[in-house]
Amino acid sequence: MNAIPDPHQFLRRLFETATAAADPRRRLPPFLPEAPRHGRLIVLGAGKGAGAMAAAAEAHYGARASGLVITRDGYRLPTSRIAVVEAAHPVPDQRGVEAARRILALAAQAQADDLVLCLLSGGASALMCLPAEGVSFADKQAINIALLNSGAAIDEMNCVRKHLSAIKGGRLAQACAPARVVSLVISDVVGDDLSVIASGPTVPDPTTAGQALAILKKYGIPVSPDVLAHFNSPKAETPKVLSSPVENIIVARPRDAFEAIIRAVAAHGLGCVDLGDRLEGDAARLAATHAQVARAIVSGAHAVKPPCVVLSGGEAVVRVTGAGTGGPNTQLALELALALNGLPGVYALACDSDGTDGNGQHAGALVAPDTLTRAAHLGLNPARALADNDTAPFFQALGDLVATGPTFTNVNDVRAILILPPQ
Amino acid sequence: MNAIPDPHQFLRRLFETATAAADPRRRLPPFLPEAPRHGRLIVLGAGKGAGAMAAAAEAHYGARASGLVITRDGYRLPTSRIAVVEAAHPVPDQRGVEAARRILALAAQAQADDLVLCLLSGGASALMCLPAEGVSFADKQAINIALLNSGAAIDEMNCVRKHLSAIKGGRLAQACAPARVVSLVISDVVGDDLSVIASGPTVPDPTTAGQALAILKKYGIPVSPDVLAHFNSPKAETPKVLSSPVENIIVARPRDAFEAIIRAVAAHGLGCVDLGDRLEGDAARLAATHAQVARAIVSGAHAVKPPCVVLSGGEAVVRVTGAGTGGPNTQLALELALALNGLPGVYALACDSDGTDGNGQHAGALVAPDTLTRAAHLGLNPARALADNDTAPFFQALGDLVATGPTFTNVNDVRAILILPPQ
Repeated sequence: MNAIPDPHQFLRRLFETATAAADPRRRLPPFLPEAPRHGRLIVLGAGKGAGAMAAAAEAHYGARASGLVITRDGYRLPTSRIAVVEAAHPVPDQRGVEAARRILALAAQAQADDLVLCLLSGGASALMCLPAEGVSFADKQAINIALLNSGAAIDEMNCVRKHLSAIKGGRLAQACAPARVVSLVISDVVGDDLSVIASGPTVPDPTTAGQALAILKKYGIPVSPDVLAHFNSPKAETPKVLSSPVENIIVARPRDAFEAIIRAVAAHGLGCVDLGDRLEGDAARLAATHAQVARAIVSGAHAVKPPCVVLSGGEAVVRVTGAGTGGPNTQLALELALALNGLPGVYALACDSDGTDGNGQHAGALVAPDTLTRAAHLGLNPARALADNDTAPFFQALGDLVATGPTFTNVNDVRAILILPPQ
Repeated sequence: MNAIPDPHQFLRRLFETATAAADPRRRLPPFLPEAPRHGRLIVLGAGKGAGAMAAAAEAHYGARASGLVITRDGYRLPTSRIAVVEAAHPVPDQRGVEAARRILALAAQAQADDLVLCLLSGGASALMCLPAEGVSFADKQAINIALLNSGAAIDEMNCVRKHLSAIKGGRLAQACAPARVVSLVISDVVGDDLSVIASGPTVPDPTTAGQALAILKKYGIPVSPDVLAHFNSPKAETPKVLSSPVENIIVARPRDAFEAIIRAVAAHGLGCVDLGDRLEGDAARLAATHAQVARAIVSGAHAVKPPCVVLSGGEAVVRVTGAGTGGPNTQLALELALALNGLPGVYALACDSDGTDGNGQHAGALVAPDTLTRAAHLGLNPARALADNDTAPFFQALGDLVATGPTFTNVNDVRAILILPPQ
């Protein structure tokens, strides 16, 4: 008896269900505010979902809307009123800097009867990148690259970024005064903390320049004399109180994707072991935990019996030391394959909901009981792939890379493990 | 509405349910073999449960049984036919060595029509300790202490112990030939591998002397010239095939305790998030995972809603660098208190099912939302307690140490997190 004839196809569909549930084109319209009676409707924003958000806003407001958003290369959807600029991610480039400067200029022109609609989603930290006065783009970029490879948590990275930025940590909202600001936000952050998502450009920032400096020290990231001087000046401090009226509203969050998966699993009549949407941290640690839970279920010493699905969400991180292609999800998938070591009946998916995992052109990867044996036949070396952070080509060679292209949303990582009964 | 008026009492009762379900006096009798028609019934064995197992065997066989078992200080129950010797645990002492020598002598006297009944449970590795010929007790003990503090997994420790032992890794069964051997075993090992439990004195050993040496290298444990010479001699190798008929039967295992808890949780009408009985490894890593699961449940982004219990089992380990009093369970409990950081409605228990956690006189500890604030009022320093591995006095001062005394069984660690709805 096997209700799941193709486990990998089943897992791919679960992942599509998750990303569809968080698609801005579905989530945004109910939250769009009324356009102002007299003033202009200025649409600003950034993030991996900003292109799709801008398209949804334009479809709603028609000719009333104008403005500029920044999205990641490949994440633009057609618009005619709201300019959509593509920029590099996760390492910012000059296009993002230029566009951020234009966004600040548009914000500065906003009048008291205008409404500024900010469309923010994960990825904005890198895409809408404008160094604080006195900090060079090269210094800011070097620190950002070091942070991304340090194993720092997303909130630590964002604390540093806010204090090196001219636009983050509430500064964009500050620039919009006296106009009213409504920010519609897609959360990619565990816990949906508005000051962390997209580095909170329209949210007063509770973190301090001192904390930012401490984080750089914690991860041993070097700081130039210019940057140090900046941190020691009062202008490094982010606004703690905003002077214009600002509403921040979350329109999609990781749990939307997660609950869609839970409903789909239940609809298939499968048992579900929900590990929650907050399993974040080191990819190898997460893989160990998932493998241990899977082993308990396979052994029968568990309240839930196969066939069932183990679910978890939350951002996996990897301390990158190699020069290969891959991301936390392919890394986690390969660690999981090693930890499961061919455990019969166990299939897994680990993907980033935005469709792009790390520095690759993939969302994540699939694991099967024969992952390691097939890899051996192809001469692939799992330990080497992990050490080189070159796990995307490993799964590519197996045909087990998940490549969705841009999903136009970004609600964190998703893992699903399908456990089938013994044959 | 609150169906659990006293969360800590509820968790203590759950733990009692777990240990009662694995009590040898309940589990052993159905498995006791018929006494031999003509020969003698020789009872040998060791482990934290061996005292209770010997008492159960004596109650069953009466005057037919004689022999010797070793148990931990304080774990002896009254017997008159089967001698029960107490010895030190987890660091072996001369009493264990002497008793192990007597056990081997009794085994050597067994004849073809005798039946040797071996009663084995976790702890036997340290309690029934006899160095291999050519290895000094001091060398063996030094290696054992280094292993216990190294963070090595239990199967790694046992591989080394077997290859330094005159009695483990199948050597006891070998000594019983030509008598028939029946081993009744209480498993404290995730996966219930018979060659790992109690270091498998009556099980042919698949591990090799080369692997044992590699494990010592992996954890940087120094080896004397005598021990190195032993490892390089053929007699270091454990028996791969046994010459007498041997049956090994598991009479209680971690899942018995675990399933008793699951039934009790269901009987209370509470939801249950089962993480399985195999969540083993570093205590801080396990605490992080449990806190993340608890946070997801409290946030509502989880399939199971409060009130509910999160359960897990499996051996936690700690790399000991401090000189304090405590064990993996108190260490895990304190890490968990820090990770939860006062999360409302969340209560937890982490205990070793044998009633003794690490080097303390306690089974484990309890965590509550006010653990850290009460500790602060008492001037207790959690970070210091963790660094000094001095976590038992921390919970003692709070009144949250769980001290059951010996449970007379040993089925691994048990964790239960009770999550109540918002007040």
